[in-house]
Amino acid sequence: MNLSHIEHLGIAVKSLEESIPYYEEVLGLKCYSIEEVPSQKVKTAFFKIGQTKIELLEPTAEDSPIAKFIEKKGEGVHHVAFATDNLPEALAKAEAKGVQLIDKAPRPGAEGLEIAFLHPKSTKGVLTELCFDPNN
Amino acid sequence: MNLSHIEHLGIAVKSLEESIPYYEEVLGLKCYSIEEVPSQKVKTAFFKIGQTKIELLEPTAEDSPIAKFIEKKGEGVHHVAFATDNLPEALAKAEAKGVQLIDKAPRPGAEGLEIAFLHPKSTKGVLTELCFDPNN
Repeated sequence: MNLSHIEHLGIAVKSLEESIPYYEEVLGLKCYSIEEVPSQKVKTAFFKIGQTKIELLEPTAEDSPIAKFIEKKGEGVHHVAFATDNLPEALAKAEAKGVQLIDKAPRPGAEGLEIAFLHPKSTKGVLTELCFDPNN
Repeated sequence: MNLSHIEHLGIAVKSLEESIPYYEEVLGLKCYSIEEVPSQKVKTAFFKIGQTKIELLEPTAEDSPIAKFIEKKGEGVHHVAFATDNLPEALAKAEAKGVQLIDKAPRPGAEGLEIAFLHPKSTKGVLTELCFDPNN
């Protein structure tokens, strides 16, 4: 598959309110967007560094996948998202190589991207997202 | 601090031999270097995607920090490394903001970089490396 760069890192945090000051005041990044995604039971905050965004993910319910992740592994990197210029082809290639797809077809993600997740059981432990930006 | 991009992601894996084919054959990245670092009890494999390297880390001993990480959290992203143009200044700023430093001063890292780690207790759960490339 043709991947150009790391589009974003998804990082699970307990609290955006406590984490944003670390990213802004210590790392010197700027939070440019905060968005609630009810379907995923998360609130997100976005930063940009070079080609890559950092997406902080705070759970908004006890049964949020992010709450379960934090309970099991603690705060930390939740997923890695790669940019591709052809998402359906990338998914077909991954499946042909035996990778278990969480999303069999592209679906809408944050910021107007089309996205799909690969299962970490098939990706050496890293929950992996593939992203296509139709505006690029 | 002045961070320009994500220099690399360190990813803990049980076996380079089993993981490199995933990164090469599924993701389409090319492993350009394999290196053993006896002081850290790891064997590393490097890939490049856009501005960012992916550094796979395989433990070479049971008491390797990477072995302990995998035992506790499973395979996955172990650390995030940011590029800075002034490492001593970045460390001084982090310490002034109350961040616990693992390395109080820059030390030699892989590929000729100068590096230092920040403690994940101070960085919202993400083991964080700062890197300066003296050849840039």
